[in-house]
Amino acid sequence: MKATIITIGDEILIGQIVDTNSGFIAKSLDKIGVEIHEMISISDDKEHILSTFSQLQNKVDLVIVTGGLGPTKDDVTKKTFCDYFEDELVVNPEVLAHVTELIEGFYKRPITQMNKDQALVPSKCTVLHNQMGTAPGMWMKKENTVFISLPGVPYEMKYLVESVIIPKVVKEYERPYIIHKTILTYGQGESLVAERIEDWENNLPDFIKLAYLPNPGRVRLRLSARGTDKEMLEAAIEANVQSLDAIIHDIIVGFDDNETLEVVVGQLLTKKGKTIATAESCTGGKIASLLSAVSGASSYFRGSVVPYSTEIKTTVLGVPADLIEENSVVSAAVASSMASNVKRIMKTDYAIATTGNAGPAKGDSNAEIGTVFIAIATPNDVIVEEFNFGQPREKVIDRAVIKSLEMLQKEILKNVH
Amino acid sequence: MKATIITIGDEILIGQIVDTNSGFIAKSLDKIGVEIHEMISISDDKEHILSTFSQLQNKVDLVIVTGGLGPTKDDVTKKTFCDYFEDELVVNPEVLAHVTELIEGFYKRPITQMNKDQALVPSKCTVLHNQMGTAPGMWMKKENTVFISLPGVPYEMKYLVESVIIPKVVKEYERPYIIHKTILTYGQGESLVAERIEDWENNLPDFIKLAYLPNPGRVRLRLSARGTDKEMLEAAIEANVQSLDAIIHDIIVGFDDNETLEVVVGQLLTKKGKTIATAESCTGGKIASLLSAVSGASSYFRGSVVPYSTEIKTTVLGVPADLIEENSVVSAAVASSMASNVKRIMKTDYAIATTGNAGPAKGDSNAEIGTVFIAIATPNDVIVEEFNFGQPREKVIDRAVIKSLEMLQKEILKNVH
Repeated sequence: MKATIITIGDEILIGQIVDTNSGFIAKSLDKIGVEIHEMISISDDKEHILSTFSQLQNKVDLVIVTGGLGPTKDDVTKKTFCDYFEDELVVNPEVLAHVTELIEGFYKRPITQMNKDQALVPSKCTVLHNQMGTAPGMWMKKENTVFISLPGVPYEMKYLVESVIIPKVVKEYERPYIIHKTILTYGQGESLVAERIEDWENNLPDFIKLAYLPNPGRVRLRLSARGTDKEMLEAAIEANVQSLDAIIHDIIVGFDDNETLEVVVGQLLTKKGKTIATAESCTGGKIASLLSAVSGASSYFRGSVVPYSTEIKTTVLGVPADLIEENSVVSAAVASSMASNVKRIMKTDYAIATTGNAGPAKGDSNAEIGTVFIAIATPNDVIVEEFNFGQPREKVIDRAVIKSLEMLQKEILKNVH
Repeated sequence: MKATIITIGDEILIGQIVDTNSGFIAKSLDKIGVEIHEMISISDDKEHILSTFSQLQNKVDLVIVTGGLGPTKDDVTKKTFCDYFEDELVVNPEVLAHVTELIEGFYKRPITQMNKDQALVPSKCTVLHNQMGTAPGMWMKKENTVFISLPGVPYEMKYLVESVIIPKVVKEYERPYIIHKTILTYGQGESLVAERIEDWENNLPDFIKLAYLPNPGRVRLRLSARGTDKEMLEAAIEANVQSLDAIIHDIIVGFDDNETLEVVVGQLLTKKGKTIATAESCTGGKIASLLSAVSGASSYFRGSVVPYSTEIKTTVLGVPADLIEENSVVSAAVASSMASNVKRIMKTDYAIATTGNAGPAKGDSNAEIGTVFIAIATPNDVIVEEFNFGQPREKVIDRAVIKSLEMLQKEILKNVH
């Protein structure tokens, strides 16, 4: 079973907004075994939409369209559905009652003609009632292809996908099983990982596909199995993950999407009953922001100081001014002092500190652009490493953040007690 | 001049990652007058890519492909280009030298065969040298269409678009002018705004297109003009913005040049020679992280304290313990104290403070999930507002971050001196 997702809206084509709706729909369909054939973004242009519909007719089972359902002149989806299905717009009384209730009852505003027009739908369509807003969804079938229209507002679209589309597809269609398993590795590049697992990769069965998803400092390996026998697929994925683990056990840090480094570190800290604080100069609070974004972080993350100016390193963190003077603000000595001081001030077991020059200018310290010192304070010690993460600024910050969490993880794993 | 952007990668089609590359490329091309016809995401499948290329042949001037350029088996773009152009892969000595220097000289690792294979490119292509990584870009022309291949790693892609593609397109192609102007309105829904400006909209000239971009609480109106006479287009946009302003002056809050809020706030602070610090409990350092990610932030951003545990609010930020006891840690009084204290400690002109409960659990404070207090300390005053951002956790944090920056911006604009 195949689906194509179409996003309508010039704001996407001129790069004004990023389309996140397609990803949500894709993930939801993937979970129930529907394969996404393509995602397409096109403009608010009736002819363009019609020719895209014709191309997809009978090539895929589902065409899901988001956007273009608003009440204004630039919203063309409903008229386009009428043209494609040789249909006409009629008032749907249930939708009209819902829109009236929402505008007059909830928002306490007089209802306008444009509001009322939201209740116009093609006469032959199955209306998908939108409890989250005024624009209804539509479900229309032509030959072997169902065309679905959804509003572009993310929480309205999500509501209709989760509460209406997915249950309806599950009920009406036979689908295969699709199982994914993602293995998170760190510390070696894509090429090196690929060379180490080459034999294993060549021996994967046909129904299992491997993908490499590289990020700075880490590579995720995704196995996808597709078929009708769910138990067999699960067993095959499990067996191959185990044989992979035997080959690259040293670089595997976790499994599945949700286990980002900050989640893995959080689980480790929770398990060992330890706490963490950060003192972040060049990373500007990003490590704290990632650590605290995890549910339940308050049980191990106590806080952070971001001493972005040199003076704050002394006044708030208590790094001695002469230490900065002698070693420069971007130095192992300063990173080390920041880590041990924030650990003491916040009374934690571990601390991360970063100081560096992310560029693009050289700045006060005169350190090379890309230079970063990372210090990890542990219950007994402080470890410092120097890196050059190159450029641009965005990459230096991201790599420093990831490397900090990796170094922390390593130290926690060392301190087994 | 028309372009289609193709993203290759199963990780997008199963919803594992969101494609942000296409938006960046679209924005860059739009600025120089290239119209984006479509954005398409397809899987790592050679036949699918080839049939998409054939469909686009001579229909658009540029086809820009990102992804599938890595060194591993699932990367098929180079082979597909060879097939489509009836070409073969050859070693490019300059790329090989660059890859060798990067791996052996910079990363200090032995070079592998897979690393070396990155220097293989189709013999007829123009190589686009990638200073940010090992995978080169490619530029190949067939009849009236140029096919460009770029790596999928965002900062490598961005480097090639900005430093190579845009200058090359500007030099080699005649293009029309495209001008956008976005008007931000606040406080009225899409339908109401549309009814108020209906006559004005009907009188827009053909070469100016209007789009409505609704968000909770605000509607952006985007005018786009396309043509060959730049001055005429600018004058026409300007005249229509003025006549629009006369109709809905009461709800217009600004004109958006597509900069992010943290960049706009940074520019404002720089212009006024003012400084900022943050004290972030529920936002966990995310505001600091966004502010500091902007190049040149060190001239106005002095630092942050993230007092994630209640104790740190007292010990590091000096919020009186009895104030917390009396009002609860999630309260206007505590937010206000955090803001004025961090402003004093970091000797800044402005400060942002956040305290709230992002969920999913209720926590110590017993505050409703989604409750956030945001305080802005200005040179003369402290402003506090209470919000409920609902759930989930991620949304509460993100909305608190955006609202904080908006409140700060408003206060800086008020303090005109």
